[in-house]
Amino acid sequence: MTDPVTGLPVVGMVGAGQLARMTHQAAISLGLSLRVLAEHADDGAALVTPNVELGGPADKAALRQFAASCDAVTFDHEHVPGELIADLESSGVVVRPSGAALRFTQDKRAMRRRLEDLGLSVPAWSDDPTTFRPPYVAKAVTGGYDGRGVWFIDEGDQLPDVDLIVEERVPIMHELAIQVARSATGEIRCWPVVETVQRDGICVEVVAPAPRLSPSLASEAERIAVTIAEQLDVVGLLAVELFEAPQGLLVNELAMRPHNSGHWSIEGATTSQFEQHLRAVLGWPLGDTKPVAPVTVMVNLLGGEATDLARSLPSALGAVPNVAIHLYGKAARPGRKLGHVTALGSDVVETRDRARAAVAELRGERT
Amino acid sequence: MTDPVTGLPVVGMVGAGQLARMTHQAAISLGLSLRVLAEHADDGAALVTPNVELGGPADKAALRQFAASCDAVTFDHEHVPGELIADLESSGVVVRPSGAALRFTQDKRAMRRRLEDLGLSVPAWSDDPTTFRPPYVAKAVTGGYDGRGVWFIDEGDQLPDVDLIVEERVPIMHELAIQVARSATGEIRCWPVVETVQRDGICVEVVAPAPRLSPSLASEAERIAVTIAEQLDVVGLLAVELFEAPQGLLVNELAMRPHNSGHWSIEGATTSQFEQHLRAVLGWPLGDTKPVAPVTVMVNLLGGEATDLARSLPSALGAVPNVAIHLYGKAARPGRKLGHVTALGSDVVETRDRARAAVAELRGERT
Repeated sequence: MTDPVTGLPVVGMVGAGQLARMTHQAAISLGLSLRVLAEHADDGAALVTPNVELGGPADKAALRQFAASCDAVTFDHEHVPGELIADLESSGVVVRPSGAALRFTQDKRAMRRRLEDLGLSVPAWSDDPTTFRPPYVAKAVTGGYDGRGVWFIDEGDQLPDVDLIVEERVPIMHELAIQVARSATGEIRCWPVVETVQRDGICVEVVAPAPRLSPSLASEAERIAVTIAEQLDVVGLLAVELFEAPQGLLVNELAMRPHNSGHWSIEGATTSQFEQHLRAVLGWPLGDTKPVAPVTVMVNLLGGEATDLARSLPSALGAVPNVAIHLYGKAARPGRKLGHVTALGSDVVETRDRARAAVAELRGERT
Repeated sequence: MTDPVTGLPVVGMVGAGQLARMTHQAAISLGLSLRVLAEHADDGAALVTPNVELGGPADKAALRQFAASCDAVTFDHEHVPGELIADLESSGVVVRPSGAALRFTQDKRAMRRRLEDLGLSVPAWSDDPTTFRPPYVAKAVTGGYDGRGVWFIDEGDQLPDVDLIVEERVPIMHELAIQVARSATGEIRCWPVVETVQRDGICVEVVAPAPRLSPSLASEAERIAVTIAEQLDVVGLLAVELFEAPQGLLVNELAMRPHNSGHWSIEGATTSQFEQHLRAVLGWPLGDTKPVAPVTVMVNLLGGEATDLARSLPSALGAVPNVAIHLYGKAARPGRKLGHVTALGSDVVETRDRARAAVAELRGERT
């Protein structure tokens, strides 16, 4: 199944969104060409790689056929049902991370229990909705992402009718994230902890390294990430979202793939999360994760009412010549993640302002 | 002809080698997907973009059909005959750079004359092969690249039977190159001058910025590059290869496209030559060209007798974790340009050693 021209292995990614799109960019440098299973022909990654098969993430036949042409299969999202991952594994497909690991990103109850078993701190939670007095948080056990599947419950609010867990509302000082890569060989590398800014459950800004973090909490975050990667036998990228609370660091969410909180690494680190994911999945040695600049800021581009990229892209390029713009090949719609902007610098405020200015231009808010 | 999903323009590149491959990587970030006219289905860029048409650079019908699906057409090489470029232009295709500019990269006699008319220094040259006593240099007027079409003539050597010019053999202190981008709007940006190391006429190493260059010669190189870009009405990237000789800077060669001497800019500068070429060709504002690190070194990977990338790539990734490896998707053959390695650092020798070590590993010379 190796590439007939180069003799290099073929990596397949299920899902063809922006994560697959950026993974393909990284694959090109390594002499590879990412193969994707795309739900739609105009998915972001399907527009830029020739190695596309069409099929949904819950289509058993499509998954099997796709996997048969890949040396290793990995994922752009969490939407492949566990039993279909198990089916691939039992037929000998190299699936990375494994279904046993991915389960903890697909089932919040299982994830919370497993983390507690490992002695890691999570927000106080329960299966019983009467445990906490409002305000508290309810979370769908499966299927949530980008703020969907999370509800802030106030006095008198009705609980949604899905399988859910409830959690204390944690007084959060900062939200943090840490990316760690674990190769199929067991080699592990962490990037520095980053601070994330969330709005309506969607990550809107990332500052790397986290500017207000004590060295002891940074080490603690790294220890948490390495423990999870090793104990859950993660292969590939693992993103751990953390709350910095008065009682210390609490694990909020896990993702076992490249993640929005790691986009800064494309320009900001010696090795990007996308290249590292490929290296890890193939069992290759991992790259250096050191930051390239004192400060890197990533700001997400969410579509606005007036966003028209054909008009605003050239104006943004002109207004802010010293940032990196990444567009995902999507039609603009309000609230949709259309891309992101990364700025390198030495001062957090100046660097963030530069990235924000480019995003404002791209949204069509300045011109 | 804009992209139906994003509304962004479509850029077509004639030729699908590594320059087109890396231009596609840059295009992805800008929300674009490069369209290529590939001679072979397994050309480096054809392996990584879905927007491929097959056809040779001298095939008039293929060029016309290709151009009809592009908002702007540009080039990965100099092999499209001038009359076919003129044919596209007369039928209304936006060709950048224009045939009138490209002519000076396709005809060394015309180039030398034009540069002299502009008051720029070139090596002493002549149409008459008896002008210089050996040792001197003979150059094919058309078709040379990567050392082909250049002959060092010693006493008793026979001249090749092609249209040629002869040149003095210049005592070269250093070889230099400078990249400049000129947008269709006339905006111009230069990267810092780099030092290049050539072996058998092939660029093997680039150090950016040129470490042993006086500020006055750096300004002079910039003035030369801007003069050529403006006076020859270049749109897109222009690479000017220079000799640093006792009498000052002499212009040796021109290329009007991304160029091997500018590969360092992918990691080493805020904006890479590939993104800049797209911005220039589309008439978009240009990006900042400042170096990201004090020193960037790029070393070419030429195939060796024992090169087997499937074996040596993982070992190189492990041996040198802090460089960027770029492979071009080619089967290994001795002497063939298979990729390049870029290292960032603060010391020329340490940075160069790191890049060279990764290349030696990739060639299979270390393990």
